[in-house]
Amino acid sequence: MRKYAAEAIGTFWLTFGGCGSAVLAAGFPDVGIGLLGVSLAFGLSVVTMAYTIGPISGCHLNPAVTIGLFAGGRVPAGDVLPYVVAQVVGAVIGAAVLYVIASGGPGFDLAGGFASNGYGDHSPGKYGLGAAFVTELVMTAVFLFVIMGSTHGKAPVGFAPLAIGLALVLIHLVSIPVTNTSVNPARSTGPALFVGGWALAQLWLFWVAPIAGGVIGALAFRWVADER
Amino acid sequence: MRKYAAEAIGTFWLTFGGCGSAVLAAGFPDVGIGLLGVSLAFGLSVVTMAYTIGPISGCHLNPAVTIGLFAGGRVPAGDVLPYVVAQVVGAVIGAAVLYVIASGGPGFDLAGGFASNGYGDHSPGKYGLGAAFVTELVMTAVFLFVIMGSTHGKAPVGFAPLAIGLALVLIHLVSIPVTNTSVNPARSTGPALFVGGWALAQLWLFWVAPIAGGVIGALAFRWVADER
Amino acid sequence: MRKYAAEAIGTFWLTFGGCGSAVLAAGFPDVGIGLLGVSLAFGLSVVTMAYTIGPISGCHLNPAVTIGLFAGGRVPAGDVLPYVVAQVVGAVIGAAVLYVIASGGPGFDLAGGFASNGYGDHSPGKYGLGAAFVTELVMTAVFLFVIMGSTHGKAPVGFAPLAIGLALVLIHLVSIPVTNTSVNPARSTGPALFVGGWALAQLWLFWVAPIAGGVIGALAFRWVADER
Amino acid sequence: MRKYAAEAIGTFWLTFGGCGSAVLAAGFPDVGIGLLGVSLAFGLSVVTMAYTIGPISGCHLNPAVTIGLFAGGRVPAGDVLPYVVAQVVGAVIGAAVLYVIASGGPGFDLAGGFASNGYGDHSPGKYGLGAAFVTELVMTAVFLFVIMGSTHGKAPVGFAPLAIGLALVLIHLVSIPVTNTSVNPARSTGPALFVGGWALAQLWLFWVAPIAGGVIGALAFRWVADER
Repeated sequence: MRKYAAEAIGTFWLTFGGCGSAVLAAGFPDVGIGLLGVSLAFGLSVVTMAYTIGPISGCHLNPAVTIGLFAGGRVPAGDVLPYVVAQVVGAVIGAAVLYVIASGGPGFDLAGGFASNGYGDHSPGKYGLGAAFVTELVMTAVFLFVIMGSTHGKAPVGFAPLAIGLALVLIHLVSIPVTNTSVNPARSTGPALFVGGWALAQLWLFWVAPIAGGVIGALAFRWVADER
Repeated sequence: MRKYAAEAIGTFWLTFGGCGSAVLAAGFPDVGIGLLGVSLAFGLSVVTMAYTIGPISGCHLNPAVTIGLFAGGRVPAGDVLPYVVAQVVGAVIGAAVLYVIASGGPGFDLAGGFASNGYGDHSPGKYGLGAAFVTELVMTAVFLFVIMGSTHGKAPVGFAPLAIGLALVLIHLVSIPVTNTSVNPARSTGPALFVGGWALAQLWLFWVAPIAGGVIGALAFRWVADER
Repeated sequence: MRKYAAEAIGTFWLTFGGCGSAVLAAGFPDVGIGLLGVSLAFGLSVVTMAYTIGPISGCHLNPAVTIGLFAGGRVPAGDVLPYVVAQVVGAVIGAAVLYVIASGGPGFDLAGGFASNGYGDHSPGKYGLGAAFVTELVMTAVFLFVIMGSTHGKAPVGFAPLAIGLALVLIHLVSIPVTNTSVNPARSTGPALFVGGWALAQLWLFWVAPIAGGVIGALAFRWVADER
Repeated sequence: MRKYAAEAIGTFWLTFGGCGSAVLAAGFPDVGIGLLGVSLAFGLSVVTMAYTIGPISGCHLNPAVTIGLFAGGRVPAGDVLPYVVAQVVGAVIGAAVLYVIASGGPGFDLAGGFASNGYGDHSPGKYGLGAAFVTELVMTAVFLFVIMGSTHGKAPVGFAPLAIGLALVLIHLVSIPVTNTSVNPARSTGPALFVGGWALAQLWLFWVAPIAGGVIGALAFRWVADER
């Protein structure tokens, strides 16, 4: 039970912190943090939580990570469903707290997207479905490749949270313009439940592509590392 | 005595460095560091001091941290008051040195806020009292959660200063627009003494909400980690 | 075979991530990541892969690194050619995937340069051939100096990926305006194959200068460290 | 001899990299790295070199650091003068290489300041002599405090280069508008020799204040840590 609570709290932090930086601070007049600041926010949420709850739950914070690590032989089958449920619950609470805060300021409007992920007309840079799918698939594949490798027994001890969090920074530095960057179905689900409409209609892609990519990346690492 | 001096010097650095980046460099024409730079400044003040005085005083630099860690069973009761006094003294000196420097440039005016924290009309983004209170409460709760976890015996050795300082970066990336980000009553008190008026009138929130949040976060970690 | 695959995947990530951040996100309206974000992207691609495949292949991701380390006595002769081939293959695939994504958005045009390296009229800041050659030579020399030193037996264990990746961040912070920053012939070759014309005509410099610089830097470190 | 060469190469890197980022990239149109990028560049030059030559020379790269550490009992008297000479030589070569590159682009003019340090009319934000002196004194004092602490036997092994380099980032985040940030007489001397005139006339402050501050900071740490 405690490890599921840890996953919920951690995914709360990723969603509240990452999406919060986008909604509250990215476009602040003159001194806003921009996409660079949002990229750091998502990545640092993982760095900080991995050092905090890593010893308790492994700090997945992401259904694509849990399922990818299951495919990679690192997570027992019985943990998959409760982890995913805890992650989605945490992400929804994160979006809810963000909603409470954001709606306490002037001019807030869910029509601004509330940091939801999207493609086509709802991609920040108007990238189509194909580009969005490839982006989420490839990004999550490399993400799991990094997670598998940096937590491997041969990697230096203690650095995996940095490697994994900084991989998430890099993923966002590249792909926010394409999909607003998901690579994490739970993070996508939180804001989408508040925005509804198009965000829910496009949510399937941000479950399917990250999970497929995550499985591919984890299996690729197993082959490269000759793990059996 | 020496550990109290360490806390005073460290909180001097946090207040001088963090608020100094905001007052002197955030809005510098064309090449200013913006809220992203200010976020890094606050966080790096903690990273750097934690590696420096961590072995001496624990490097709290923050009454909400000291009281939260006391609630979490990590700090003896007798240290709480002297730590808090030392932190406030350090923060006031930090604000004083910043005042000396800032007033040596053209066009300086305390009416610009001097990096004080505020809500309502004095929130950078005009967020109301409720949003401000929730923000400070939640942010400090997660901050103590991270501090408790990353300094736990099961966490990798030596990385806690990075985890804690980077958590402070993330907290600022999200919440400067809401309250100018406190999560630290000492840091709030330093500039408020110089600005007076509204800054002193609103100072209560930046003592109450961070301390309450810090206690909640520390107790939450104890439960999740099953610490007794 | 597996270590060559690791080099190809890693160089894919460096080229896709670094050039991708430049093509997709650097100039995004109002909130673009700018040259600072691109600098971080290239550096973080190395940090993340070095923690992931460092134990498998050494994570060179760069012909100038492989050849420099060979000159420095750290890599056997038989590894040089297959490593370089794997790196170029990975970089070309990285550019290809980036092309698929970028062309899925509006207004994409290879005439924008596709993150190719160049000098003279094709330098971002119109720097001439001499300045470009000196820049690439000196930057790669220091890069190999850092790689040789931070992976030396006397350096603290586990930090080399950070030192090396952050050196690449710094190299980009300085030199993107001059050459768009290569220090890596494979990274230069990927986009140049898509752009053709001038990019292929100028590609020689981004093989010659980085390799020459890399050899100089590696030998310089051997002398300073009195390695035999 | 080899450790003096290491100091010269390291200080070359700090001056070339830090000042180079300011001269070449800070104000690049639309996507320039700004003062935040310059701050990172100076700090990362120290992070990367400390992991590289730390085991060889200690990686001071700065006369104020060498003299401060001498005052703090960490450096033998006989090393002080040769270290300072090597650092100045390295910084001058760094400025020279930067001059070669910068003058290979259009519109370069030493009248732009070439990243020299200054006060009064030559302070980026027009801060007066008093503010400049206090800034350099206090910043270098804290810098040596961090250096003494993070390299102390009780600090976690391997993290000092990060703590020290990130302290330099923070110092720059605050104080570039005041003095263009020195805290390092060698780094100040390099560009000043090229600019001449006012830069040489004001150079005294960037020797006196950092060295005085460095001695104060080192002695302060000894007292706080009860070192004898």
